Amino acid sequence: MRLRNKPWVQGLIAEHPEWILNEPEPQSIQGQWQQRFTKDQPIELELGSGKGQFIIEKAQQNPERNFIAMELQPVAAAMILKKQLQAQLPNLQILVANGRQLPELFATGEISKLYLNFSDPWPKTRHEKRRLTAPNFLKLYQSILPAQGVVEFKTDNQGLFEYSLGSFNHYGMEFDKISLNLHQSPWAENNIMTEYEAKFSQKGQPIYYLVAHFQN
Amino acid sequence: MRLRNKPWVQGLIAEHPEWILNEPEPQSIQGQWQQRFTKDQPIELELGSGKGQFIIEKAQQNPERNFIAMELQPVAAAMILKKQLQAQLPNLQILVANGRQLPELFATGEISKLYLNFSDPWPKTRHEKRRLTAPNFLKLYQSILPAQGVVEFKTDNQGLFEYSLGSFNHYGMEFDKISLNLHQSPWAENNIMTEYEAKFSQKGQPIYYLVAHFQN
Repeated sequence: MRLRNKPWVQGLIAEHPEWILNEPEPQSIQGQWQQRFTKDQPIELELGSGKGQFIIEKAQQNPERNFIAMELQPVAAAMILKKQLQAQLPNLQILVANGRQLPELFATGEISKLYLNFSDPWPKTRHEKRRLTAPNFLKLYQSILPAQGVVEFKTDNQGLFEYSLGSFNHYGMEFDKISLNLHQSPWAENNIMTEYEAKFSQKGQPIYYLVAHFQN
Repeated sequence: MRLRNKPWVQGLIAEHPEWILNEPEPQSIQGQWQQRFTKDQPIELELGSGKGQFIIEKAQQNPERNFIAMELQPVAAAMILKKQLQAQLPNLQILVANGRQLPELFATGEISKLYLNFSDPWPKTRHEKRRLTAPNFLKLYQSILPAQGVVEFKTDNQGLFEYSLGSFNHYGMEFDKISLNLHQSPWAENNIMTEYEAKFSQKGQPIYYLVAHFQN
């Protein structure tokens, strides 16, 4: 969702270069992400972190992995930053950038796993290329993941899920986990909800879930 | 579903060898199916036809194709036969046989398309091999279809659909159409309902739909 810009945002972001990178120059950080974390351990990336509830909790529960919250909108990224200023998680970094720049921001294999949570469905056919599960994006993910790299995807949007099943399949990705009702599935127990997911699922509507890996 | 056996069944089947083949000897009919139809045209097969509503209507609507209703239970097959004795469709044949015998019943490429409608979900893991979308069955389908042969599958069972998405994907099949709510999809208009589907969908629950083809 599009958030209204706020006057405090750019100031707060500029004050905390230790936690947040704001639209870094291409290649400036590529291959050097481990240096921004306390421990050298696998880095997982959420593309489109929104207000950050998922990635903050994920980082808290998994100190043995590093996490990057990537978000296009500075307002949302600043909200994640506010939470991180409270939490002070050494294994969480925030990145303000556009998903199209992934290959310039990360080296091949620098990211061990990628999360897509409740991405914009872009329902019109002419906007297909903007969907984060479209083949043009899968190609970018493959370029920053190792061989057999994993993408974990959830959405409440039926059309986007149907599209994504086809898109992942056509790209030659292999499915590892599928649920048409995540909260009633064997994976519910370890599921970390996004803000949106918590609100949405109270209405009793299902969350769709797909984990898949590239074949090379 | 399992139907109660009825005394008239075997008699009726024996009286109509022109419409129904009852557990033919292996290889006895393989490669010779076109001879049982009036016109030499592509043959489509429904595996598990139940009482036949789908396949009868399909054959009525598509005189330019031949159809085979394959059904394990003689009682159900006899019910299809009763309908066919009324309809007298020259492009419909009935076959009483077990799905495991497909490669002995048909030559490679003899069937142009395969339908699976509301197959038994066999929800227990130890029964996986009985599910008609398990890899052991996909291999049989591939052996009677041409290269790029198409399988069309629908079910109301969430677990079976999740399983089948994974199974088709792992087998290397390519998805052509996916819907998590067939009756509200672009394919609803041409959909022919089974008896079960008509009853079930009145409760407002979704029908899942997947069309996929083998890659070789």
